[in-house]
Amino acid sequence: MIPHELCQPNLNFLGLPEELANPATAKVWILPIPYEATTTYGAGTRNGPLAILMASRQVELHDHRHGCEPAESLGFATLPPMEITVSTPEAMINRVAAAVETVFSRPPSPELLVVLGGEHSISAGVARGLARVVETDGLVCVQVDAHADLRDEFEGSPFNHACAARRISELCPVFQIGIRNISKEEAEFHSTANNIQTFFREQWGPSGVNALRDFVRGKTVYLTIDLDGLDPSIMPAVGTPEPGGLFWDELLEIIRTIGEAAARVPVMDVVELAPIPGMIAPDFLAAKLIYWAAADLLLPGDGTNRGG
Amino acid sequence: MIPHELCQPNLNFLGLPEELANPATAKVWILPIPYEATTTYGAGTRNGPLAILMASRQVELHDHRHGCEPAESLGFATLPPMEITVSTPEAMINRVAAAVETVFSRPPSPELLVVLGGEHSISAGVARGLARVVETDGLVCVQVDAHADLRDEFEGSPFNHACAARRISELCPVFQIGIRNISKEEAEFHSTANNIQTFFREQWGPSGVNALRDFVRGKTVYLTIDLDGLDPSIMPAVGTPEPGGLFWDELLEIIRTIGEAAARVPVMDVVELAPIPGMIAPDFLAAKLIYWAAADLLLPGDGTNRGG
Amino acid sequence: MIPHELCQPNLNFLGLPEELANPATAKVWILPIPYEATTTYGAGTRNGPLAILMASRQVELHDHRHGCEPAESLGFATLPPMEITVSTPEAMINRVAAAVETVFSRPPSPELLVVLGGEHSISAGVARGLARVVETDGLVCVQVDAHADLRDEFEGSPFNHACAARRISELCPVFQIGIRNISKEEAEFHSTANNIQTFFREQWGPSGVNALRDFVRGKTVYLTIDLDGLDPSIMPAVGTPEPGGLFWDELLEIIRTIGEAAARVPVMDVVELAPIPGMIAPDFLAAKLIYWAAADLLLPGDGTNRGG
Amino acid sequence: MIPHELCQPNLNFLGLPEELANPATAKVWILPIPYEATTTYGAGTRNGPLAILMASRQVELHDHRHGCEPAESLGFATLPPMEITVSTPEAMINRVAAAVETVFSRPPSPELLVVLGGEHSISAGVARGLARVVETDGLVCVQVDAHADLRDEFEGSPFNHACAARRISELCPVFQIGIRNISKEEAEFHSTANNIQTFFREQWGPSGVNALRDFVRGKTVYLTIDLDGLDPSIMPAVGTPEPGGLFWDELLEIIRTIGEAAARVPVMDVVELAPIPGMIAPDFLAAKLIYWAAADLLLPGDGTNRGG
Amino acid sequence: MIPHELCQPNLNFLGLPEELANPATAKVWILPIPYEATTTYGAGTRNGPLAILMASRQVELHDHRHGCEPAESLGFATLPPMEITVSTPEAMINRVAAAVETVFSRPPSPELLVVLGGEHSISAGVARGLARVVETDGLVCVQVDAHADLRDEFEGSPFNHACAARRISELCPVFQIGIRNISKEEAEFHSTANNIQTFFREQWGPSGVNALRDFVRGKTVYLTIDLDGLDPSIMPAVGTPEPGGLFWDELLEIIRTIGEAAARVPVMDVVELAPIPGMIAPDFLAAKLIYWAAADLLLPGDGTNRGG
Amino acid sequence: MIPHELCQPNLNFLGLPEELANPATAKVWILPIPYEATTTYGAGTRNGPLAILMASRQVELHDHRHGCEPAESLGFATLPPMEITVSTPEAMINRVAAAVETVFSRPPSPELLVVLGGEHSISAGVARGLARVVETDGLVCVQVDAHADLRDEFEGSPFNHACAARRISELCPVFQIGIRNISKEEAEFHSTANNIQTFFREQWGPSGVNALRDFVRGKTVYLTIDLDGLDPSIMPAVGTPEPGGLFWDELLEIIRTIGEAAARVPVMDVVELAPIPGMIAPDFLAAKLIYWAAADLLLPGDGTNRGG
Ligand SMILES: [Mn+2]
Ligand SMILES: [Mn+2]
Ligand SMILES: [Mn+2]
Ligand SMILES: [Mn+2]
Ligand SMILES: [Mn+2]
Ligand SMILES: [Mn+2]
Ligand SMILES: [Mn+2]
Ligand SMILES: [Mn+2]
Ligand SMILES: [Mn+2]
Ligand SMILES: [Mn+2]
Ligand SMILES: [Mn+2]
Ligand SMILES: [Mn+2]
Repeated sequence: MIPHELCQPNLNFLGLPEELANPATAKVWILPIPYEATTTYGAGTRNGPLAILMASRQVELHDHRHGCEPAESLGFATLPPMEITVSTPEAMINRVAAAVETVFSRPPSPELLVVLGGEHSISAGVARGLARVVETDGLVCVQVDAHADLRDEFEGSPFNHACAARRISELCPVFQIGIRNISKEEAEFHSTANNIQTFFREQWGPSGVNALRDFVRGKTVYLTIDLDGLDPSIMPAVGTPEPGGLFWDELLEIIRTIGEAAARVPVMDVVELAPIPGMIAPDFLAAKLIYWAAADLLLPGDGTNRGG
Repeated sequence: MIPHELCQPNLNFLGLPEELANPATAKVWILPIPYEATTTYGAGTRNGPLAILMASRQVELHDHRHGCEPAESLGFATLPPMEITVSTPEAMINRVAAAVETVFSRPPSPELLVVLGGEHSISAGVARGLARVVETDGLVCVQVDAHADLRDEFEGSPFNHACAARRISELCPVFQIGIRNISKEEAEFHSTANNIQTFFREQWGPSGVNALRDFVRGKTVYLTIDLDGLDPSIMPAVGTPEPGGLFWDELLEIIRTIGEAAARVPVMDVVELAPIPGMIAPDFLAAKLIYWAAADLLLPGDGTNRGG
Repeated sequence: MIPHELCQPNLNFLGLPEELANPATAKVWILPIPYEATTTYGAGTRNGPLAILMASRQVELHDHRHGCEPAESLGFATLPPMEITVSTPEAMINRVAAAVETVFSRPPSPELLVVLGGEHSISAGVARGLARVVETDGLVCVQVDAHADLRDEFEGSPFNHACAARRISELCPVFQIGIRNISKEEAEFHSTANNIQTFFREQWGPSGVNALRDFVRGKTVYLTIDLDGLDPSIMPAVGTPEPGGLFWDELLEIIRTIGEAAARVPVMDVVELAPIPGMIAPDFLAAKLIYWAAADLLLPGDGTNRGG
Repeated sequence: MIPHELCQPNLNFLGLPEELANPATAKVWILPIPYEATTTYGAGTRNGPLAILMASRQVELHDHRHGCEPAESLGFATLPPMEITVSTPEAMINRVAAAVETVFSRPPSPELLVVLGGEHSISAGVARGLARVVETDGLVCVQVDAHADLRDEFEGSPFNHACAARRISELCPVFQIGIRNISKEEAEFHSTANNIQTFFREQWGPSGVNALRDFVRGKTVYLTIDLDGLDPSIMPAVGTPEPGGLFWDELLEIIRTIGEAAARVPVMDVVELAPIPGMIAPDFLAAKLIYWAAADLLLPGDGTNRGG
Repeated sequence: MIPHELCQPNLNFLGLPEELANPATAKVWILPIPYEATTTYGAGTRNGPLAILMASRQVELHDHRHGCEPAESLGFATLPPMEITVSTPEAMINRVAAAVETVFSRPPSPELLVVLGGEHSISAGVARGLARVVETDGLVCVQVDAHADLRDEFEGSPFNHACAARRISELCPVFQIGIRNISKEEAEFHSTANNIQTFFREQWGPSGVNALRDFVRGKTVYLTIDLDGLDPSIMPAVGTPEPGGLFWDELLEIIRTIGEAAARVPVMDVVELAPIPGMIAPDFLAAKLIYWAAADLLLPGDGTNRGG
Repeated sequence: MIPHELCQPNLNFLGLPEELANPATAKVWILPIPYEATTTYGAGTRNGPLAILMASRQVELHDHRHGCEPAESLGFATLPPMEITVSTPEAMINRVAAAVETVFSRPPSPELLVVLGGEHSISAGVARGLARVVETDGLVCVQVDAHADLRDEFEGSPFNHACAARRISELCPVFQIGIRNISKEEAEFHSTANNIQTFFREQWGPSGVNALRDFVRGKTVYLTIDLDGLDPSIMPAVGTPEPGGLFWDELLEIIRTIGEAAARVPVMDVVELAPIPGMIAPDFLAAKLIYWAAADLLLPGDGTNRGG
């Protein structure tokens, strides 16, 4: 065979050498779920996970904010993409739930599981799986999104991407950031729901960050990032790019806040990337976001006040 | 309101004036079904119907082969796109079947219904609906495709696009043209099936045309055109563009042969167009194909030997 | 025919059901004018109107700022696209003028006519038509644009898109926002013109908003939005995307200010969208802009101080 | 200044050194006319000339068919692009006519003028200018096109691209090749016209080539190539890509036939290229076509029977 | 960890399960070399290998021509991409040579090594490596290409892609197919070279196939496929897409001929794919080509007359 | 020949008439260097210079900030693109150095030379050439970039684009702005280097501007702008678009600060533009940046405090 030094690293997240990409030791696991079956408008989220993996190979491993290479101390293992079923959305969601449950119930388990969508509907499965393996008492969900995703059903399915937060809210409290699109039905439901706290995009600011800190303090946090929560100027590669979104610095601050205050963050998902052919900036942003988020959620330093 | 002469025609197929686009009198109906939920690879068939409608507005109405404007004598009515359900593939297929049944059981009915996909899975619904309203004795299906589509199930569903011909073959004999992709499972099934006649692409030629003529003679024909049956050089805008496909003249000859020999062709579908942004040639080909096919299937002249 | 509940809404603005899209009752009319004949550089504005219509179907009808669905109380009727003439630019401009005049002189008339370009040259026609049906005494124009558009003639025609504001200024005062491109000839003309008030982009801020409020107070306002007035980060899909433009919040504030202070806004146009194949964010922004603008211009609530 | 040997050739056709690109000695002149003002559907022909110039820099100068570098013996001078007017289509056509007249009436003049469109409407101007400087008795036009272009007027102008051949036919006989799109009005006119010979695409073959040879024998030929005459598989970059077109070998044969039989070919135009961003094959085809055509039209060898 | 049955296959060629993708047993090895440093015009060949791997996952494993799944009997192992050096082209070529030498000198070795380019310059390294491990007496090279690639040097390097065949010809005889671009310098060299046999594209036909059969009979064949040898209609995704190329059936016939007559084919490379964003047909063609070529080169059946 | 008034300006920067584009009198020279040989990820910087030239033709010559047309008083001469060598990166860098040296040592010389990349590696050559013709005592470099570019070697070459600033720092002090990507190796080197001052992006602000003013005061400044220093929202067309970059106003302020405080700025380069097909905004930004920078660096007015 060809000498090792002549070869590039494998096609894993960050292009890591095998010793840093081994699930047995890596603290971060990447699980690609290229599921797209209920999308309404712009297509292509099924290509999202692979685009993130490819772009991640260009992410610099050194993080000057932390003054180290988080990949070295953490390790990132890339799991093979999940097999898709299109029999029904619920079947797929159950499969996702089973996978998440297995990840955390059969050692070795990661400190942080990063799920790569695919469409937002998979988050209902992530939450379902997570609720089976953690104390649901202490479980909360933080959702970054342009859309409330609080519909009870859409296009014939309660497991549509437009219902993701509604399903999650049936399992734990939800804190929504960046919302700028909510339907009448959702608004009515929202006014009666007592475990959903929503910051419309124009309401987000220092007081929102404080509320977020209070919300996650000492909790087990499931962080679900629908990339359309970001402003279309930096994230045009989503199915419904709503103008007036969050910016890069604001998203980093959200993650740092969670990292500092939460007890732990076992799962983060990054969903709805629908790559635009010929435009790599959105894919790269998603890849760097995941790497920096893992550092801010798992490393001390910027995260020293954990649980405080 | 603005005077009529200052306005362009509506956004219907061919951009026709209302008197030629009225379902009450039009002999051809266009039914868009932008369904995409089981696609494996290249995404975007949900944008196919609209792309065909848009491109059709540039199709010249005069057909020099027939020496007339078929749109004038036939009329083309464009129905609104079907509402999508993503609850299960079967639910969608049943909805398609109900629509096709309704079209032919509640007058006025068209002489030719052209269904615009969307993915090929909808054809199972088209066949199901058609079988409820015609004598299934005399019903046959001609399939143009690169793929046999004879799987019994795929990715968890028997109504996956990869199962389209299998489902149809349960209702009537199928004649396949242009195939160059068949799985082991499909090949084994095919060797035992007695109502499926398959011409691999390399086998297609004059003897194939003769066999086709015999197959459709005096029959009620359902023509299903998966655009990936065409060569990728003229039809790159499909999810799985298999090299070595059919050319424009060959497809026209197939349609003329059916038009001349069949008793009638109540339904044709054109599926799997996944428009490539910035490239209009495939969309335009699909639009012109439908217009010329309608002329060759419904008009005498080139079609004088009908049923002979 | 197919039962109504199986069908999607028609291809109108917002994808509304017929009862909300009827010109007889709708307060907002959408008039597409896909005219492009004098463009210098990036091509494609002739595809703008259709792209806006398509994207509008994904706009959420509920407006959480107003706490209601403006589409329900207002109604939006989509007119067929205007027929184009390329005989001369002036012939086209006159045709546009005739259309606008007819809209407001033959009942039913809308409260707000939204013209979709096409290139900016059509605005000369819009202004001309409007001046025939309103008191020109109280008529003013607010122009959002990167370019002054004050040339007296360009490439052989006084009806070039680069002359739009010059032609309008011959009929009523013009207030320009976001300008960052003005030619020597235009600057010289501007220094002598007494009915054109210009805020270069770097000058825009709270004092500009105040000046705008004074400018429109109690007036009949024609609002013309050349989308290149926006920053290319959120609006790259224009022919000449000048860096350093307006942002989403600033544009919404401009519209709210007009809505609060103006007596009425009978016409708004949104021009120069040249869709980038494969990139839907700019089209969607334009569609949402129109919907939210209609709400802010016509609905009380945020607009309670109307005419104040 | 920087030493010459460190520099690339200028941005002229073929990237030639100055001594081969001098109008004083070059036998071939390239005149770019980036005019686009009457286009109906796909936009972008105004970018055609530049795309051809850029692609031409990759064309190999050695022509193995002739066994030499035609550029060396012929010389190719690239003129600056013509200034556009959009006042009226007729004004632009007259400007083109004036330019062509000047080229051939003020020495030095080229043996072959190659006009790069831009839309086909400019050909009316080319013919008009040519008719002023050659004996119109011996002048004929060969048109390669998918469309008859025989309308008397379109969208308000008799100088629309859809009228190009009609205008030319008023000056000299026209021989049409590759046509597969003709309107009722055009077909009626055609049946009464006695100086227009048309080969529909399906009629083209050896007998057509013979008819062409007879048509051009001993004549002064104006060759106008609308690139949509080619098959969309090799030329998708046109506004209306009609399926079923001519192939590369057929077009080369047409040109060789003209080169062998005609007395001279003072002008050829290549029009309607609307470059597809990211796809260079069509641009390169157009550039190589022009180079090989110039060789076949002007060089002895393959062209020894000239005038025979 | 997640149960195996919930996971998709790894990101290897064809998406094979591990037991079929193990280098220890697989008869075919895939070696990606994403090298691009001397390209002149269209960029992007560095993205070629990954695009082929991705597209290969959609290739049907069953080959109806052979009536079996070649992947099952052969096995395909995907090696990690080679590490690139840009110090000098020669350094990279030497690295490639070392890799090829190692593959065949340290067991286990494959029956067929498929190298994925990257630019054609790597073939000089492939040949160099191969010449070290096989009897050069019996070694010949078959080159499919639009370009002769016989320059002695280009842009300062003798290891430029434009010199690939020249370097190979220094090691063994070369048989060129599909050529339609040769420079004066190359033509002069060619006329003096006695181990290079060239079929220009227009010369290719049955006699060429016979000559090819004679050329490879009983030899060890290195097959180098520059994808620009194919017609741009089916292979637009190359840097210099020369019109008038080979078609799919012709290329398959070339491969079958080699498979039948050659003693063995230890190496094939497929180079110069420069993926066009948004267009998957060329990538898929390359992937299917490799799979079918491996079957035709290694499997008996269609290849029974091997060495005859 | 064709009368001059019918022709467009030549294909030079800004599309200037010859009298303003003559190197003998122009104060600004534009030198395109389409070099790309060491790029790792996104390809296409070799197309950058031409894209900037093309876009520059749409830049308005009047600069309302200066109240004049800087092109008129300055003149901009566009040199032919440099010939590329790919023998080794060092050979190319030396060629660039020779070119820059020649520009300033053989009169006429420009006041400002603007080099258009191509990849950032060329800057090592620019600095090397500049150091031969100015007092290196007073020479400093200001680098705008997302990446530190301080590697000593990368992928086998010390002249890789990732080493640009390291090579420059061996000749003169470097001031880095906008950095948000630095490797461990670079960070270690940086901590020991005493002539490199780095402002990470999050550190940039008024104090940074002051430090910059001090750094350049009275110095000869070489300004190197890697466009990836800008935020990907306004500059997505780069190989590695790092989120969280500089904005348009910040870059203009940097340039104005240098213009006001520096003794002179003989060279500026603008590198790493990799045009995205179909998206002109980034190309246009680069072109306008160069024009406005030249005005701010060379014209009094905004630059009256020069050297103060
Ligand atoms: Mn969302
Ligand atoms: Mn969501
Ligand atoms: Mn198929
Ligand atoms: Mn199918
Ligand atoms: Mn503007
Ligand atoms: Mn404007
Ligand atoms: Mn045409
Ligand atoms: Mn034409
Ligand atoms: Mn080649
Ligand atoms: Mn080659
Ligand atoms: Mn950089
Ligand atoms: Mn750099």
